Amino acid sequence: MNHRMIFKVLGYLLLIIALGMVTPLLISLAHHQSDTVSFVASIAITASAGFALTRIPLKNKVLKIKESLAIVTFGWLFSSLLGALPFYLSGSIPSYVDAFFETVSGFTTTGATIINDIEILPMGILFWRSFTHWVGGMGILVVAVAILPIMGTGGFHVFKAESPGPIADKIAPRIMETAKILYRAYIIISLAEFALLMLGGMSAFEAAIHTFGTLGTGGFSTRNSSIGAFGSAYIFNVISIFMIMSGANFSLYYSLFKGKWRDVIKNSEFRFYLGILFVSVLAITIDNNFHIYHNWFESFTHSLFQASSIMTTTGYTTFDYEKWSAFSRSVLFLLMFVGGSAGSTGGSIKVIRILALIKLIKRELTKILHPRAIVAVKLGNDPVAESTLLNISGFFMLYMLIFILGSVAISLEGIGFLGATSAVAATLGNIGPGFGFVGPTHTYSEFSVMSKLLLSFFMLLGRLELFTVIALMTPKFWRREM
Amino acid sequence: MNHRMIFKVLGYLLLIIALGMVTPLLISLAHHQSDTVSFVASIAITASAGFALTRIPLKNKVLKIKESLAIVTFGWLFSSLLGALPFYLSGSIPSYVDAFFETVSGFTTTGATIINDIEILPMGILFWRSFTHWVGGMGILVVAVAILPIMGTGGFHVFKAESPGPIADKIAPRIMETAKILYRAYIIISLAEFALLMLGGMSAFEAAIHTFGTLGTGGFSTRNSSIGAFGSAYIFNVISIFMIMSGANFSLYYSLFKGKWRDVIKNSEFRFYLGILFVSVLAITIDNNFHIYHNWFESFTHSLFQASSIMTTTGYTTFDYEKWSAFSRSVLFLLMFVGGSAGSTGGSIKVIRILALIKLIKRELTKILHPRAIVAVKLGNDPVAESTLLNISGFFMLYMLIFILGSVAISLEGIGFLGATSAVAATLGNIGPGFGFVGPTHTYSEFSVMSKLLLSFFMLLGRLELFTVIALMTPKFWRREM
Repeated sequence: MNHRMIFKVLGYLLLIIALGMVTPLLISLAHHQSDTVSFVASIAITASAGFALTRIPLKNKVLKIKESLAIVTFGWLFSSLLGALPFYLSGSIPSYVDAFFETVSGFTTTGATIINDIEILPMGILFWRSFTHWVGGMGILVVAVAILPIMGTGGFHVFKAESPGPIADKIAPRIMETAKILYRAYIIISLAEFALLMLGGMSAFEAAIHTFGTLGTGGFSTRNSSIGAFGSAYIFNVISIFMIMSGANFSLYYSLFKGKWRDVIKNSEFRFYLGILFVSVLAITIDNNFHIYHNWFESFTHSLFQASSIMTTTGYTTFDYEKWSAFSRSVLFLLMFVGGSAGSTGGSIKVIRILALIKLIKRELTKILHPRAIVAVKLGNDPVAESTLLNISGFFMLYMLIFILGSVAISLEGIGFLGATSAVAATLGNIGPGFGFVGPTHTYSEFSVMSKLLLSFFMLLGRLELFTVIALMTPKFWRREM
Repeated sequence: MNHRMIFKVLGYLLLIIALGMVTPLLISLAHHQSDTVSFVASIAITASAGFALTRIPLKNKVLKIKESLAIVTFGWLFSSLLGALPFYLSGSIPSYVDAFFETVSGFTTTGATIINDIEILPMGILFWRSFTHWVGGMGILVVAVAILPIMGTGGFHVFKAESPGPIADKIAPRIMETAKILYRAYIIISLAEFALLMLGGMSAFEAAIHTFGTLGTGGFSTRNSSIGAFGSAYIFNVISIFMIMSGANFSLYYSLFKGKWRDVIKNSEFRFYLGILFVSVLAITIDNNFHIYHNWFESFTHSLFQASSIMTTTGYTTFDYEKWSAFSRSVLFLLMFVGGSAGSTGGSIKVIRILALIKLIKRELTKILHPRAIVAVKLGNDPVAESTLLNISGFFMLYMLIFILGSVAISLEGIGFLGATSAVAATLGNIGPGFGFVGPTHTYSEFSVMSKLLLSFFMLLGRLELFTVIALMTPKFWRREM
């Protein structure tokens, strides 16, 4: 393996992270706040480390699968290790493990927090905390578009199957082009949300923070009671719409931009994504209206918000949904396993995998009646290769396995079944809040150090689509090639 | 579809059910109990219905896939509808829906009960209730061996892959032979347990009842506090061993009988089955020793019993495991999704499917590092066909889908998350008791009629390996063939 190459690329990544800390530093300076020094120190440390690594002389420029996998996983890890510095050095988060947890949660766009009182934090720190969401959301698009195709597996196969136009084998030359399109969409949508939130009365600072949290499907807020603190149906609904947009495949915006409305409307993943959301929102709006709100508009607003927030794996809240009926809470729990679309910033299992597996079930049922029939599973008009279906099946099984074994491990904390399972579902799915011990009015602060590290690991696992990280943990990965 | 043929076969089945009611009738007569008349009436009704159906003149003897599927599903349904008569007519269970639930639970070897006080029931009724387990356990072996191969899918592919000797395509002529071998093993093991339980001080009646419950991996008892009522470590451990034996592939006993020890020891499903059990029992023995029992032998006995009982989907209890720590309870919850081996009377997802999917994950990880390598998934020395892997994946996804959507539906009862999810897991997996609202000290009596019917449906679904029943519910099934 080309270790020098890996470290060199990681060096450049750290320089980008250091650069990212400049904006919060400026905000801190502008407002004469206490966190200025910590940002200067963090930038100095991160930039020096990054600079040192970029100076490594290369023996060759080989960058194959193993190197790519290592770069992705360690890239996310290093970014979090150094991205945690401002929190730690400013004293905003006194424990380094906690600061690391918070940063992993930020970059992976999870939004699980260990901070019990967000509102006392200085502005630079708050900005940096949410900015990681926005960067992480972008980063995942890079991974999806640039790294996964090199690996030739999993998410990308799926992404490929659903993205418009015949990409086939000529992916590589189009990567940069596709990435640019996605970024453009990402930035334009961000600006739109920022403007609409300011129109709703938010300060520029808070509008930025919540735009970062929405677009990255992250969920960090400036308020202890999350979006609920703003008490405005306008803001609730604006954020709902942008969460739903962020959970859709970003390549659809390219189609829209090109005027290809039909491609968007006919996209089977998009239809299924909206379909799940529609049915869920309908069911809980009715249920909540009778149990809680007794007002259709209010019930719809909160139900739409919460369902979108959980399903897109954002994690913002407008209401303590633990007060909802068992039925509505179950629907939310179910949505934790759905997630966003391929090519979105949303996490969890992802809509397209679920759609492919449901179509597989249909196919297997047909096969029972006609055992010799050869029936392909199709997404839209394209047949899905059997090898892709097996890859998706492997992913799904691995997801469930990690969820179940993870829940058993977290149950050692003695926090109750709902707390343990939803903590794992919420971190693995990059959602943030769960139920019970990690419900919307709680934080992750009371977990033991071991559990915090384990949950951080789950966030990384979920963000990097399991296989990437797990492949690094196999003995085969570290065996020398013959 | 050949409706006449279907009804005719169902007629013969009902005659067998009527015949099965003769033993409890004799027990009732011998003890001069109140349920005698109800058995006479039930036998008369069931036998007449059966006789009438067998008189249907056939136009042809066509028995294809659709007819087989219909016979299996409706066979289980009719048996339960008429098998419920003794409970209902004797007044032991005043509601017919409850009696139906109890009978489905019996035949599907689930062991979920709606009876709050078992100990006041007459002996004939108690016998009939548990006898359905024994018959159902046998029946599932018929389905696994005789019906599934006709369908050519799913469980049987797997069964075939793991069963000793080259069966290949010559399955049909060997079905009866294989069935005989399995029955012989079933009866011999039953007699052995019966003898050992009597040696432990049980009456012949109670020894029979608990043998039925163990061999069928059912779980109906004569006591309200299940096996715990006997307070004997000897009985606990005897039943543990026989539960573990009943959850193993019965074809292994044939190998043993033929002296082929190596085939048994090398069988990958059997090793994995014992491996999961070993790790689980070890973990909860240690945990329980420190939290509850403070006595290694006692902790081991209860841990072994409970882990075996849940994993083999029997559902007997020796202790209120809801008093265990969150960790040990989580391990039990996890085991609810493992189940028995292929070719056993145990239900749930089944060990071999989990093993195949874990091997699929390993294969997919290898493929990330070597995208062009062609690596087969193997069970033992035999490669598993990709189509079989997809069938297993479809099954797993369908199982999870039914579990999750079922839990949401049951949550409408407002019984809490743990109660709702474990009720669905316990019925779909044919286990019996769960947690919370359906914990070991509770029954299913407090559910609404709708939920009882839904849970009965889950028991049937689980018992008949999902696809069989679901295929019947597709429009394609009822469409006339061209």
